[in-house]
Amino acid sequence: MSLLVVGSVAFDEVETPFGKRERMLGGSASHFSISASYFTDVRIVGVVGGDFGREEEAVFERHNVDTTDLERIPDGKTFFWRGRYDFDLNTAHTLDTQLNVFADFKPKLSEESKRSRLVFLGNIQPELQREVRQQVKSAELVALDTMNLWINIARDALLEAVKEVDVVIINDAEARQLADEPNLIKAARKILSWGPRALIVKRGEYGAALFTGQTYFAIPAYPLESVFDPTGAGDTFAGGFMGYMASQEKLDEAAMRRAMIFGSVMASFNVEEFGTERVQRLTHDEINERFRAFKQMTHFEEIPFERAVKATR
Amino acid sequence: MSLLVVGSVAFDEVETPFGKRERMLGGSASHFSISASYFTDVRIVGVVGGDFGREEEAVFERHNVDTTDLERIPDGKTFFWRGRYDFDLNTAHTLDTQLNVFADFKPKLSEESKRSRLVFLGNIQPELQREVRQQVKSAELVALDTMNLWINIARDALLEAVKEVDVVIINDAEARQLADEPNLIKAARKILSWGPRALIVKRGEYGAALFTGQTYFAIPAYPLESVFDPTGAGDTFAGGFMGYMASQEKLDEAAMRRAMIFGSVMASFNVEEFGTERVQRLTHDEINERFRAFKQMTHFEEIPFERAVKATR
Repeated sequence: MSLLVVGSVAFDEVETPFGKRERMLGGSASHFSISASYFTDVRIVGVVGGDFGREEEAVFERHNVDTTDLERIPDGKTFFWRGRYDFDLNTAHTLDTQLNVFADFKPKLSEESKRSRLVFLGNIQPELQREVRQQVKSAELVALDTMNLWINIARDALLEAVKEVDVVIINDAEARQLADEPNLIKAARKILSWGPRALIVKRGEYGAALFTGQTYFAIPAYPLESVFDPTGAGDTFAGGFMGYMASQEKLDEAAMRRAMIFGSVMASFNVEEFGTERVQRLTHDEINERFRAFKQMTHFEEIPFERAVKATR
Repeated sequence: MSLLVVGSVAFDEVETPFGKRERMLGGSASHFSISASYFTDVRIVGVVGGDFGREEEAVFERHNVDTTDLERIPDGKTFFWRGRYDFDLNTAHTLDTQLNVFADFKPKLSEESKRSRLVFLGNIQPELQREVRQQVKSAELVALDTMNLWINIARDALLEAVKEVDVVIINDAEARQLADEPNLIKAARKILSWGPRALIVKRGEYGAALFTGQTYFAIPAYPLESVFDPTGAGDTFAGGFMGYMASQEKLDEAAMRRAMIFGSVMASFNVEEFGTERVQRLTHDEINERFRAFKQMTHFEEIPFERAVKATR
């Protein structure tokens, strides 16, 4: 199998200035896998409770997402998150978090999952990320996400996890905090010195950047006149990135650069509606159209300075 | 003559976490013209006092900047600004502003200046910007900068000035404030509806964006491990942009896109040392090298989705 994700599958209750949803399919693994499903087959490792119903299962089925390793605990409740966005849609205010069945989650991988070519370690406890990573020894590309909570309370375990992956995918503030360094370029250098061959920094409305040991690649965000619900944008980006990578034979930097664009394309759709609603009903043509728009948005002619400038000096 | 700038010529006293300078050549017209001088001949319209000495004149001379229209008031003092940057180098804290001779500044244009092909209206009172603009009726490209002060206290005059120019070059926060619209894409649409054919939004460490009626172009900032003194970065950007445009026969969007890169290149040098120190001693090779780096930083292959994705669905 090609792409494995471990992360949360949740119910989200979200309020934005534009409306409210009370029980949406959410969580990092959900956003990731639906996004990635447009590029490759995905398997989910996670846990849900007895309240996780046919409707939610059907979403995964429609996207060919394999839920064999999605553990069901009939007498437990699914992870629940409630949050609000004010007019500044960049900041989520968490109103309630109920771990429920996720509190005792121990990832269990089937033999097929252990043979995955690519793995995404979604934002969960670093110890669990390491456990999963150890079980997929032969993976060609392993990426990791994290958050400020783990940087604060599980820093040592997180640094060990970072050492064992190929790509770290985090946001601007997390990169600075993880490296304890306010300058992003220095922060990136420091994180890469620990082992990963690439660092991807998500910058919200400012786009995203890819750092490798020797190179730097940066793209803007797709320009949107209205952002409706940013929940899951980061995981949707990661899903587009890793899904596209899984579709490629060569996992080199050129592929990663294109994958950055596809990740941004998927994230741009994600924020246009609540939860996974928009990403659930995308077409390949729609994805293509935005991919091409990125080329238009970033293209300039490389005309050497000598020719461009008149001899006035 | 090709490029005219009206703006402040000043003495700056700047303190950053890395050091202090007490009497540097500063002001929007100074930063702009030294930057633009690498691409074209520049004329300055402005005013200085009797304290403006040979040393400062010599800087302009070395860069072929024509100061015929730089008025000298022997018994007056040059505009003075004192500011401090803390560890967050993005925010300037103004400690002192002494307008001095600038308080009664009335721009006086020589006949040669009135025939300028390109004009940059630096960040001064909108009424003065309009006066200059009226005197250069035949200019092919007129650009304008402004700041939150004028948006607050001279909004009507500023809107009139905006209507009369081709390009507005402002920062992120100013664009949102000018349009009274938090979403930048909507703000840009609104500003363009007033008349300009292009809006350039400077975003500091996040780069810059060019909006036209139909297109969007965005570039990252050149990645710097240390920012030393951001004073004048915006005017240095504008100088690179307008200077490069002045070197071009066709003032179309393709030229503007390349000019955005040259503007960013010049700004990246500016912040590496105090005031105009770094930009004063650039070579064309150094400028070229960073221009090429921008191509490397933004290039990706445009491989259609159909070929890139395996038929897994």
